[in-house]
Amino acid sequence: MNGVEAPEGRLEAAARSPDRPLSFDVLLPAPADGSTRARLGHLRTRHGDVQTPVFMPVGTNATVKALDPEDLEEVGAQIILCNTYHLYLRPGHERIAKLGGLHRFMAWQRPILSDSGGYQVVSLGDLRSVDDQGVTFRSHLDGSLHRFTPEHAIAVQEALGSDIAVVLDQPVPPHSSSRRDVAEAVVRTHAWAERCLAAHTRSDQAVFGIIQGGLEPDLREASTRVVAGMSFDGICIGGLAGDESAAQRRAALDVCIPLLADDPRPRYLMGLGSPADLLDAVDAGVDMFDSVLPARIARNGTLWVPEGRLNLRNSRFLDDPEPVQAGCRCRACRSFSRAYLAHLLRADELLFYRLATLHNLTFVLDFMARIRSALAEGKFPRLVRDTATLASSLANQGPEA
Amino acid sequence: MNGVEAPEGRLEAAARSPDRPLSFDVLLPAPADGSTRARLGHLRTRHGDVQTPVFMPVGTNATVKALDPEDLEEVGAQIILCNTYHLYLRPGHERIAKLGGLHRFMAWQRPILSDSGGYQVVSLGDLRSVDDQGVTFRSHLDGSLHRFTPEHAIAVQEALGSDIAVVLDQPVPPHSSSRRDVAEAVVRTHAWAERCLAAHTRSDQAVFGIIQGGLEPDLREASTRVVAGMSFDGICIGGLAGDESAAQRRAALDVCIPLLADDPRPRYLMGLGSPADLLDAVDAGVDMFDSVLPARIARNGTLWVPEGRLNLRNSRFLDDPEPVQAGCRCRACRSFSRAYLAHLLRADELLFYRLATLHNLTFVLDFMARIRSALAEGKFPRLVRDTATLASSLANQGPEA
Repeated sequence: MNGVEAPEGRLEAAARSPDRPLSFDVLLPAPADGSTRARLGHLRTRHGDVQTPVFMPVGTNATVKALDPEDLEEVGAQIILCNTYHLYLRPGHERIAKLGGLHRFMAWQRPILSDSGGYQVVSLGDLRSVDDQGVTFRSHLDGSLHRFTPEHAIAVQEALGSDIAVVLDQPVPPHSSSRRDVAEAVVRTHAWAERCLAAHTRSDQAVFGIIQGGLEPDLREASTRVVAGMSFDGICIGGLAGDESAAQRRAALDVCIPLLADDPRPRYLMGLGSPADLLDAVDAGVDMFDSVLPARIARNGTLWVPEGRLNLRNSRFLDDPEPVQAGCRCRACRSFSRAYLAHLLRADELLFYRLATLHNLTFVLDFMARIRSALAEGKFPRLVRDTATLASSLANQGPEA
Repeated sequence: MNGVEAPEGRLEAAARSPDRPLSFDVLLPAPADGSTRARLGHLRTRHGDVQTPVFMPVGTNATVKALDPEDLEEVGAQIILCNTYHLYLRPGHERIAKLGGLHRFMAWQRPILSDSGGYQVVSLGDLRSVDDQGVTFRSHLDGSLHRFTPEHAIAVQEALGSDIAVVLDQPVPPHSSSRRDVAEAVVRTHAWAERCLAAHTRSDQAVFGIIQGGLEPDLREASTRVVAGMSFDGICIGGLAGDESAAQRRAALDVCIPLLADDPRPRYLMGLGSPADLLDAVDAGVDMFDSVLPARIARNGTLWVPEGRLNLRNSRFLDDPEPVQAGCRCRACRSFSRAYLAHLLRADELLFYRLATLHNLTFVLDFMARIRSALAEGKFPRLVRDTATLASSLANQGPEA
């Protein structure tokens, strides 16, 4: 199996110490009838609790673009993600540590998950080279040369002081990578996972491992077995939310997650953000998500509504006195018309970016809250049926309303 | 006097109807000893009351850049200014009227003063030509040809539905204009003022006239007499806050304002915004001000503090854990360090522009509140003495802290 060694048979979750800085309780497990693997959970961290399934807005540069911490509370963010690669380069992890850590730096007192920088570094293309010891790359800011090893990725995240750190991995594009490349990345990711665990010292910070394996079922299975066999606090499913189709992604999840059925840890699918994709991945058994998608398309003028998507660059909105979404609780919909937002967008006014981001994050976080309510009430399968049309119109490439 | 005809002798303020949409009460007139012409006033409009002396933040495109209406209330804005020229071009005054007027469009329920567009149009340089009937100009957005007459400037402002409209005038650079150019602009401004008054129909909107006259004492005096002789609701002092020195500006104010000593109407000096300049102009007897300066320099990284100005581009702030101004009530100073703001600025993060604007507007609005308190307590001359150093370091070109 291309050098990927993994335990066989029934998967034993690695033993974890009872005084870990993160705990996870499955409040309502997936039903025994196999109709869905969706589950309701509760994550406890030293900065507060998180109800799962959960979507984490992305604060690349220690700020979710255009929003302040009060805005994040207003939209209902329970936990956010920050990017280790970006913060390492600017303003620097040691500087943030001296200033009291990332929570204090950005004035966000709820949980923070930091990624490992693996995705950003490996995405640099010609600007980087990967070897078994780590990744050498040039800064996208000034071209300066840097090196990330598994140990360094952990040290940077310990300096940031996030609640949840993530191991350095080697993601590859799931659809367009050869089996050989996927296998090589899996072997490397496993070796780095061991080194990250060994290097981690901060007892108040959780660490999540990452499963790779592209779209190859046997490699996905092997990677799941290996990563689940290590004493991580949670399991990331990496190397998806890339160039694969929704069906390919679901097939990969249907390999991983049944293997984790008896594993008590949270499952985090990295990089997924459209409502349609989130609904399907929750159904597949995923607990945690992150993506820049809702905020990025908002800044570009695309707002989600129950009927689909509005592109505010369309000139018909310039005379539309209605709010973006009637009844929406967000700051944009409470006070302003589509006409006003369309005007701000055309005038490139800074207020547009904040209002549009507030709307799309409210939309996706309210969608996750609906999913949790449906799970709590045993109505998740009905939600999936009822929102099939909605969800497909809210896929990344869905039609405009 | 270059064709400028004006009444002589004691100036009689024009009679005004008692049911005007704006009233102004001088709560504490300037002291009889002549130590200062500063006064405390109270302006009533159909959208609420305004304590004077007052500074009006500028919302060029129906938004004070980077802020929402709640932010404006938080910094203490009592009234804002919107730009007729910009709103006429985009999104269009008729569109705003159909959408319920400017207050509803931008969700700002407190008073709005609209300028006439004169300053913007006349500032277009080669893109415009002025004749006795009006100004023909090309849009800075798309080069399309437009014409503003006094009647059209009033019609646009009536469509916007601002609380206070302003007449179309012809400002000229005060220092670098010839006496002949200043005189020509004065004659034209007076003729246009008459036409604006005659054209105005909206009984729920106040109209302010504009005094011109550059730095020529006799032209300033004549213009003051002519404009004060018309039935405006308030008197703007235009053609200053340009290329003149502070001393030249004060000399011009010392011509105008003594002539208005018995005039019951508010006095509004257009375009002034640095604390040092505001303090001097209040002392000279001005009640109202507006400027983009505090917000513009904030977006460029310059923040006002009691000791002077901080340029957050200076690398020493990257490690500074202190707030921009200890004890400041603004959102930036309550939660964030100079280090965080300096980081956001370098990363060109949208949140920077909002936080920096909130700080500088809070600073200037709190400064105006201090001026009003000092006036109420009879301590204005002491405030002027005590803040002489402060104020000079907060002049537009003052030193950095």
